[in-house]
Amino acid sequence: MSAPASNWQSRATEKRASILARISLEWRLSPEDLAKAEGERDITGLVQEHLEAAESRIVASDATAIVSLLRDGTFSATQVATAFCKAAAIAHQIGNCLHEVFFDQAMERAKELDTHFQKTGTVCGPLHGLPISLKDQFHVKGMDTTMGYIESQITTELLSLGAILYCKTSLPQTLLFGETKNNIIGETVNPHNRKLSCGGSSGGEGALQALGGSVLGVGTDIGGSVRIPAAFNGIFSLKPTPERLSYRDVANTNPGQNTYRSTVGFLSTSIAGLELALRATLSTEPWLRDPAVVPIPFRQEIFELYRSRAEGDGKASSRPLKLGILWTDRSVGPHPPIIRGLRQVVEAVKAAGHKIVDWDPPLQATAKRVHVSFLLADGGHDIHSHLDLSGEPLIPDLEEAFELKPPMDLLEYQRLTLEGLDYEQAYSDYWNSTAVDAVIMPVAPHAAVIPGKYYHTAYTEVINLMNYSAAVIPVTKADKSIDVPDITYEPLNDVDKKNWEAYDPEIYDGAPVGVQLVARKFEEEKILAIAEIVSACLARC
Amino acid sequence: MSAPASNWQSRATEKRASILARISLEWRLSPEDLAKAEGERDITGLVQEHLEAAESRIVASDATAIVSLLRDGTFSATQVATAFCKAAAIAHQIGNCLHEVFFDQAMERAKELDTHFQKTGTVCGPLHGLPISLKDQFHVKGMDTTMGYIESQITTELLSLGAILYCKTSLPQTLLFGETKNNIIGETVNPHNRKLSCGGSSGGEGALQALGGSVLGVGTDIGGSVRIPAAFNGIFSLKPTPERLSYRDVANTNPGQNTYRSTVGFLSTSIAGLELALRATLSTEPWLRDPAVVPIPFRQEIFELYRSRAEGDGKASSRPLKLGILWTDRSVGPHPPIIRGLRQVVEAVKAAGHKIVDWDPPLQATAKRVHVSFLLADGGHDIHSHLDLSGEPLIPDLEEAFELKPPMDLLEYQRLTLEGLDYEQAYSDYWNSTAVDAVIMPVAPHAAVIPGKYYHTAYTEVINLMNYSAAVIPVTKADKSIDVPDITYEPLNDVDKKNWEAYDPEIYDGAPVGVQLVARKFEEEKILAIAEIVSACLARC
Repeated sequence: MSAPASNWQSRATEKRASILARISLEWRLSPEDLAKAEGERDITGLVQEHLEAAESRIVASDATAIVSLLRDGTFSATQVATAFCKAAAIAHQIGNCLHEVFFDQAMERAKELDTHFQKTGTVCGPLHGLPISLKDQFHVKGMDTTMGYIESQITTELLSLGAILYCKTSLPQTLLFGETKNNIIGETVNPHNRKLSCGGSSGGEGALQALGGSVLGVGTDIGGSVRIPAAFNGIFSLKPTPERLSYRDVANTNPGQNTYRSTVGFLSTSIAGLELALRATLSTEPWLRDPAVVPIPFRQEIFELYRSRAEGDGKASSRPLKLGILWTDRSVGPHPPIIRGLRQVVEAVKAAGHKIVDWDPPLQATAKRVHVSFLLADGGHDIHSHLDLSGEPLIPDLEEAFELKPPMDLLEYQRLTLEGLDYEQAYSDYWNSTAVDAVIMPVAPHAAVIPGKYYHTAYTEVINLMNYSAAVIPVTKADKSIDVPDITYEPLNDVDKKNWEAYDPEIYDGAPVGVQLVARKFEEEKILAIAEIVSACLARC
Repeated sequence: MSAPASNWQSRATEKRASILARISLEWRLSPEDLAKAEGERDITGLVQEHLEAAESRIVASDATAIVSLLRDGTFSATQVATAFCKAAAIAHQIGNCLHEVFFDQAMERAKELDTHFQKTGTVCGPLHGLPISLKDQFHVKGMDTTMGYIESQITTELLSLGAILYCKTSLPQTLLFGETKNNIIGETVNPHNRKLSCGGSSGGEGALQALGGSVLGVGTDIGGSVRIPAAFNGIFSLKPTPERLSYRDVANTNPGQNTYRSTVGFLSTSIAGLELALRATLSTEPWLRDPAVVPIPFRQEIFELYRSRAEGDGKASSRPLKLGILWTDRSVGPHPPIIRGLRQVVEAVKAAGHKIVDWDPPLQATAKRVHVSFLLADGGHDIHSHLDLSGEPLIPDLEEAFELKPPMDLLEYQRLTLEGLDYEQAYSDYWNSTAVDAVIMPVAPHAAVIPGKYYHTAYTEVINLMNYSAAVIPVTKADKSIDVPDITYEPLNDVDKKNWEAYDPEIYDGAPVGVQLVARKFEEEKILAIAEIVSACLARC
């Protein structure tokens, strides 16, 4: 092991080199290939070009299909792991989306799984042989980054279910940022449009999946961090209520701020992948090992109850869903591609016979103000204590927000706690008054954002204040020929004006647009079923 | 309505008079009766002396029996309400345990229920006609104390289930005290032994039930407040995990301290009464109206799974329970009556074939220190803001603890949050290592306490830090002829010495001894089933 480098810059350089060094030479791209990727705006198809036909078939399958192909012996775990390690290796070289690779460990694991399967004819759990990527907050035994750390509980759970872990994905400094920039790897951009951000904080997950290097990953969300990267990268995600899944022994920013908690969630290329992940992890009864987890098993009956409300063969549902639609939070209006995306969802579900009502909850700006106050309450002390360890500075984007300040007064902290609880009750009362099953909302007031222009995180943050469950589904892509700026728009305030002015149809062209479907606390099964119905409606339109 | 009195003393006098004034003359005790009660040490039998045979039969029945007798028409709701209003009226005159009586409202309600029953032959819900008493934190529509308040959600739920509400019971100033003293009614003493305290903070509930004035009541617990009065008054209680039942629109001390939350619980003269209350309130799906409540319905399968582990007719259970026993928390050792009570439980369950293991969790003093820090963190600001409204002073017992001080520094508050979470995990790990079903613990290091000598609340408070579910069952009574002081005992520290010296066999003689049975988070069904099994074992010994 090398001696620690003298400063953070050289340690970052070393780190970048060590990620590359762990990629075998046969998977390294030539300077020509790298230059080609640099020259493309959309690089989502490039990884596939480097794969064999079988590898290509594997990484293009969704998580449930892969598990089936492993179970019926079509592919071995070694074949699957090879395909994903290779795809991730290439994805990282063109997409700069990984913090750690441990392909050797993954291949060894795959071999063990294959041996078991050959000997017994049975799989090692519901995730047997499925490669799963992890946001770089989760500790994995045997990895450099776990020195001094215990393995994260959910990591152990995934392994016990038969999964193969093979890489950790990039995230922004502090975790509290809707883009993915840090002093180690720099920036992870959006594979669909390299002029745009992949979102954050589980941004590396989003980018890796958009590139075809993963079909199922684990992220976290305290203000939108699994939803934003899903929406920005054209994939699916599930943000559960905190305490549904284990956060035990996961690295986190300011964990002593426990009033509004970060939550573990999944990102996947399919809703079925999210279902699989939720069902499997809950089957391990995580609450027995992590006292923060609420003992609610996967409720098949709730899942099926809502699934049964889908429309049948060409016929409208006999028990249609009632969905709310939040067109704007009345603080910052969404850009044209988002409004078109929302309309598309509304028309699709209406066409299938479901009901839509306009949704106008208690002013979301209140919730945003309260929520962000908790994230900033310690005056940046936790973040700066970590910066002090390495000597690295805050990245420029975060300098202002996390400047070191005196912590908030405790009486104000407790007053804000009450204000948050009051808001939560008012929101719940409003929900009851409308009797909707779920609500369709923007994830952000823009499609995958232009770096440096993420001015308003309220659309996701408010849902964290309520601890609601949410799923993100992809809808469309920004299209400069349709999504023309609305020149009659009158901004409501300065932030709205800044956001409105930031809409550039040329730059945004091709940016993925997703929406979040929101249900109440601990309604993960319900929101997945509804996401499936809504996605099916979209697919038919 | 009278004009507000000029000072808190005269307002307190008025308040006391108004409670009495609402008791009809025919239920008022003569000076001779009052003098007789004053002269007795144990007054638990006195209320019965003033009741008719039918009334006596009603109030001596348990909650489930009363509900049955109403359902089969043996008694009308009016008869039942009359019996309880009368019993409570007499109980208050000799036991000083009520803050509010609303017998007129209760009788009117009973009449409505009877009319419904006569017309339809059906009951109005699972609690049809059952009188339920409420700790004076719960708001009831139409009562003076609710001016400006919304009715508490659980109050509305109980009414929707058919219950009759008739009185609110006494509690200590601040709610954060293991006895029941305040500037309004003075002190509520222990009906089993008037030299002792009824406990707190749901102390009026405990005393009222000991006197036969209620069979089911609603209290709250942030440090032991439904468990202590149950143990001290020889009744049963259930302290659920916070967020199992609704605390919405319930008056509370320092609600902005939301890290360790107070929880709504039940006190009853039977375990079946606790089951009835839990099952009924959960059937209303409180989580739909209170977003703080976790959506876990009453899980009959868990309840039955544990009930099935009881021993059969004279035969040991084929799947015996494994119970831990905490003899001491290693800070303050329990008095002889408590040790004898614990032994009695251990022997009874062993005799039935269940397994017992000594239980030695991570040092409980750590949890106690963390938990109490949160209760004191605001430096008494919330309490003093309430005192300022009336001008009343802190009662002498609380002067020192709640002296106005600067609030805690937020960074220390967040550091303590982490320390609490770490402790919770260590405790959970220890639990897993022992694989027990539940743990038998003291409720306090003494039987119903001598007023002013409650030095150590850790036995209950630690369970609040973990947010565990717990049930209290009565076991025995202190007996000066058996429970002799252990003169060889060497106190572990100053508090232990004070507590040890406070054991006076003469004064404690006749004091109820209960134990708490503790299970993990959201295991209310399980702990009730186990409490039923353990109680049955005790009854057979």
